[in-house]
Amino acid sequence: MNVLVVAPHADDETIGAGGTMLRYRAEGHNVDLVVCVVGMVKRREEQVKATANRRMDELSAAAKALGVRQWEVLFEGIENKLDSLPLLDVVAKLDSILDRGYDQVFFPLKSHHQDHRVIHDACYAALRQGARPNPPSLVAAYEYAYNGWYPDAAPAGRMYVDISAYIDEKKAVMSEYASQLYPPPHPISIEAIDALGRTRGVECGRPYAEMFQVARIVV
Amino acid sequence: MNVLVVAPHADDETIGAGGTMLRYRAEGHNVDLVVCVVGMVKRREEQVKATANRRMDELSAAAKALGVRQWEVLFEGIENKLDSLPLLDVVAKLDSILDRGYDQVFFPLKSHHQDHRVIHDACYAALRQGARPNPPSLVAAYEYAYNGWYPDAAPAGRMYVDISAYIDEKKAVMSEYASQLYPPPHPISIEAIDALGRTRGVECGRPYAEMFQVARIVV
Amino acid sequence: MNVLVVAPHADDETIGAGGTMLRYRAEGHNVDLVVCVVGMVKRREEQVKATANRRMDELSAAAKALGVRQWEVLFEGIENKLDSLPLLDVVAKLDSILDRGYDQVFFPLKSHHQDHRVIHDACYAALRQGARPNPPSLVAAYEYAYNGWYPDAAPAGRMYVDISAYIDEKKAVMSEYASQLYPPPHPISIEAIDALGRTRGVECGRPYAEMFQVARIVV
Amino acid sequence: MNVLVVAPHADDETIGAGGTMLRYRAEGHNVDLVVCVVGMVKRREEQVKATANRRMDELSAAAKALGVRQWEVLFEGIENKLDSLPLLDVVAKLDSILDRGYDQVFFPLKSHHQDHRVIHDACYAALRQGARPNPPSLVAAYEYAYNGWYPDAAPAGRMYVDISAYIDEKKAVMSEYASQLYPPPHPISIEAIDALGRTRGVECGRPYAEMFQVARIVV
Amino acid sequence: MNVLVVAPHADDETIGAGGTMLRYRAEGHNVDLVVCVVGMVKRREEQVKATANRRMDELSAAAKALGVRQWEVLFEGIENKLDSLPLLDVVAKLDSILDRGYDQVFFPLKSHHQDHRVIHDACYAALRQGARPNPPSLVAAYEYAYNGWYPDAAPAGRMYVDISAYIDEKKAVMSEYASQLYPPPHPISIEAIDALGRTRGVECGRPYAEMFQVARIVV
Amino acid sequence: MNVLVVAPHADDETIGAGGTMLRYRAEGHNVDLVVCVVGMVKRREEQVKATANRRMDELSAAAKALGVRQWEVLFEGIENKLDSLPLLDVVAKLDSILDRGYDQVFFPLKSHHQDHRVIHDACYAALRQGARPNPPSLVAAYEYAYNGWYPDAAPAGRMYVDISAYIDEKKAVMSEYASQLYPPPHPISIEAIDALGRTRGVECGRPYAEMFQVARIVV
Repeated sequence: MNVLVVAPHADDETIGAGGTMLRYRAEGHNVDLVVCVVGMVKRREEQVKATANRRMDELSAAAKALGVRQWEVLFEGIENKLDSLPLLDVVAKLDSILDRGYDQVFFPLKSHHQDHRVIHDACYAALRQGARPNPPSLVAAYEYAYNGWYPDAAPAGRMYVDISAYIDEKKAVMSEYASQLYPPPHPISIEAIDALGRTRGVECGRPYAEMFQVARIVV
Repeated sequence: MNVLVVAPHADDETIGAGGTMLRYRAEGHNVDLVVCVVGMVKRREEQVKATANRRMDELSAAAKALGVRQWEVLFEGIENKLDSLPLLDVVAKLDSILDRGYDQVFFPLKSHHQDHRVIHDACYAALRQGARPNPPSLVAAYEYAYNGWYPDAAPAGRMYVDISAYIDEKKAVMSEYASQLYPPPHPISIEAIDALGRTRGVECGRPYAEMFQVARIVV
Repeated sequence: MNVLVVAPHADDETIGAGGTMLRYRAEGHNVDLVVCVVGMVKRREEQVKATANRRMDELSAAAKALGVRQWEVLFEGIENKLDSLPLLDVVAKLDSILDRGYDQVFFPLKSHHQDHRVIHDACYAALRQGARPNPPSLVAAYEYAYNGWYPDAAPAGRMYVDISAYIDEKKAVMSEYASQLYPPPHPISIEAIDALGRTRGVECGRPYAEMFQVARIVV
Repeated sequence: MNVLVVAPHADDETIGAGGTMLRYRAEGHNVDLVVCVVGMVKRREEQVKATANRRMDELSAAAKALGVRQWEVLFEGIENKLDSLPLLDVVAKLDSILDRGYDQVFFPLKSHHQDHRVIHDACYAALRQGARPNPPSLVAAYEYAYNGWYPDAAPAGRMYVDISAYIDEKKAVMSEYASQLYPPPHPISIEAIDALGRTRGVECGRPYAEMFQVARIVV
Repeated sequence: MNVLVVAPHADDETIGAGGTMLRYRAEGHNVDLVVCVVGMVKRREEQVKATANRRMDELSAAAKALGVRQWEVLFEGIENKLDSLPLLDVVAKLDSILDRGYDQVFFPLKSHHQDHRVIHDACYAALRQGARPNPPSLVAAYEYAYNGWYPDAAPAGRMYVDISAYIDEKKAVMSEYASQLYPPPHPISIEAIDALGRTRGVECGRPYAEMFQVARIVV
Repeated sequence: MNVLVVAPHADDETIGAGGTMLRYRAEGHNVDLVVCVVGMVKRREEQVKATANRRMDELSAAAKALGVRQWEVLFEGIENKLDSLPLLDVVAKLDSILDRGYDQVFFPLKSHHQDHRVIHDACYAALRQGARPNPPSLVAAYEYAYNGWYPDAAPAGRMYVDISAYIDEKKAVMSEYASQLYPPPHPISIEAIDALGRTRGVECGRPYAEMFQVARIVV
């Protein structure tokens, strides 16, 4: 099975779907990763910058740890400004990637972050009915670390993936993104990932799980 | 795979999920059917009654045509009055049935019909997290013929099942429910079933499909 | 009665409201059409281009077949990129057109397509309360071919227009948009239009209907 | 034109749709009124009882002032306990009334009051597609005095009826329900009716208006 | 400050609002508890019964540990069957209790459990505008252990209460309800309470928190 | 207590939260005001322009009358075109302002106006969890004059602020915005503000109130 994960920024794929990616790989599937933009980020409160180079290094290490078949970056230099592009420019790039043919596609839920909303909308458009002869049989959206703050983020059509066997590995991958991590209880912390994984696990009767919102299944 | 379809009344299972049931059987799965109530129905505009006996005969014929492994009726004599029971009485019966262990469970969406809402709610309760050690991995709600009239019926988390190879058979099963059928364009008519099947097919790129709302998937 | 139909692209008006437009004209009303953008479109999977000229010819033929009193195109050269404009630029153009005075206005529902969302939002803004002395008494949104894929598209406040006497004519108009048509079961196919018309008809008890979401009625 | 207004209790029709009823009558239409239950009410904070007889007298006076063609009461002795009936008992009564044939039907929005929810649901069921050969072309829900407190009460598909010429008459009708009135700013006060009428008027550009949520229009 | 917590069953108050109750008491407020029904419960999978007596003992111990000023039980013998009562019977009892005068009232979110929905609706009705001269300034709904399974349970209008200093005490109170506890990852387990508390904490930047949905604040 | 009110344009703060601002000041709190853009506005129907200078004078007078501690304008020359900026540019400015530290922040609900949606989204992003060590304990959205026209504007999580003692003062402040005022029943008229204040008051049992939608409370 060929699976595509679309991430707005490097680390979103791990936060939202890292355990699922690790499980899929372990089960013998091919997992590809598209990161939409990687750029220099200035951490406000510490005046420390993560350069684009450092973030590319982190992404490279995380992608390796996730065991993805291939990964690529769509845009450069517009981190946090994807909304300044016509959406068509994003859709067109995703269209080309989707034309390779995927069985499952995972993309971000909407959130307070404009880039996440852009990628969410672009994926809906690129995955429109009739766009290609063999569309994915499963399209679903994964969670963002900041769940609880954005009112559109509460999913109906919930899909849970048991990641109990992969939670430690997921945390190890996350620790590759050292420039993005904060101390707890910040939403982007190892501890927050653990807590959310446990809560989603309770919701489906497993020690740890990731939750997705089903956009469309076709069987 | 063991599959359970819960229907408020005899014919709801065919209208909403008949094609899927036929396909599952053809693919070698076991499909069980629970009809919650079968009783005497008086057709208002024609003053013609369908006796409970006749409806049981129809159900028996339809169940045979659907190829279900087993079927049963939960209540008698309270057709259209399921809301007069404490919900617990319905939940308890469903609990016992679910304890047999099912991989997938299909139940009705809410609709303007009080019995559908009761069964919808009872299934949510009977399928609550933690109720049994091996819960179904897929729980989803099927459509009612009267879609378009009830505002809560527009599903997010859509799952489409391609029933193109089974549409003729589905119509044949539906014709077993002669006492329930109306001439088109009534929602409960062979022609309405055909139209909805085609529209759901267009939505997922197949000639005919049935649509479900995913309540929960656990994998 | 003067009626305005606002379409993102040439063909949206026919897909969503073509039967209603034909019926209104037959009933003696004036129907005006605004198409927001007509440009060159490249069909991805076939590498065939529909030039802007060809699309203008198609629109001209369709508008004639629809019997509209007048039609116009708002923007050129930005097909699928309406989101790159400040919304105010769209609102201002619509404001001028609405100042002519209309009794009813129809505009698109939101969809996965960015241009549809832009026009939906722009119509809401241009039709704001207090914008002109004699606002339309009915404002409603029509469906897009891709219904079923976009979660915001399930309308409350449903209005059905019986188009049974106009379905053949609607299909004939649609066939003028040859460059936009696909074979079934693609959403933009004559067959998909037929299926949706029948399904909406079932929902309101007529052979064929078009469905709209009421935004506002003032009587 | 024949119009039916369904009210849970005597006074709901006036609070939610009294101005529209008065305008319709003035325009030459026939307006019928169904009040679902009229019974003894004990005002908690004042220990004062309004007997069923007094309430019937008030209803009679109000119905006369509203100029309704006919009015009737469906149930007795179960004021505030409509949820203890099987919904079918309510639906069956409404079915018979609707069989007379109405062009427009108005019924209550859901509210915190259980009787309102019962009548709302029963009207949806009684007005189901296919129930009678000539269904109403407009079905819409009117507001309750307690808007703002119940989360399901915010209507999409808004219809405004200009009642500026009838607001004084509406208040006069309301004053017939002396046993139900409270001093301002209680939601059931003449002043609250005035304030809501003005606010709904602002929303549609008229001095006073009543707002409805369109359930279904078929034209 | 006087605070009222309304619980469908003994333990719901602790699961959803136990930390807040402990914090309020520590801050010098009076916290009263109403449990709507306490009855014999048969645990399905273990065939072990918790008698009503045992549950009353547990409730008594928990209420003491929570430090509530007073507590009471509204109904007996209809555990899980509150929907068999007319809602008015529940509302009337709550009306009397609310007449004592409370500054804040907490009640359950809707859930898959029929009793929770009944109490949710009854609280909305009993707290209706105008019901008493000095209504609570804050009314909010707390979470149920089974969040994630019921689609109406995702709250807008979120209020977080920091319970970091009380999480251990909350768990200790919960362990008083031994007859209701399950091993993890069941939603009603000490571990599940810990996980949800941590996740809600992450959402608001504290180690542990409880989340509420604001129904109404008046200041 | 330090309070921040974020307004898309000069006058939005008064329409939506003017009474609350006046009450807060009277109670001894510090209220700061950020107006996102002030520019030349052409009134369509009268061809009269309000120059940017005049609007700045009006804002200055209104801010003085509101008694705000400080006020500032974020952008110039892009009135009604805030959607042409990358959202990040707005978020970054708001981030700096929020870093001053506020106990409560009020921002606009979404509306048909693109600038209101931009500021709504930007506030959600700037107030994201973890952005600063001491985030506001209350974040809530205020109403726009055009409520009733935009379907996303119906708030759950309602907070009412009693402004009965400040309604006259609020109207006086509003009259400072002479260039923005229309005659009634336009939504931006003194009379419309009065009507909405009364209606919101009825909803919470006070003569006049302002309503807010709670985005997040942390206590």
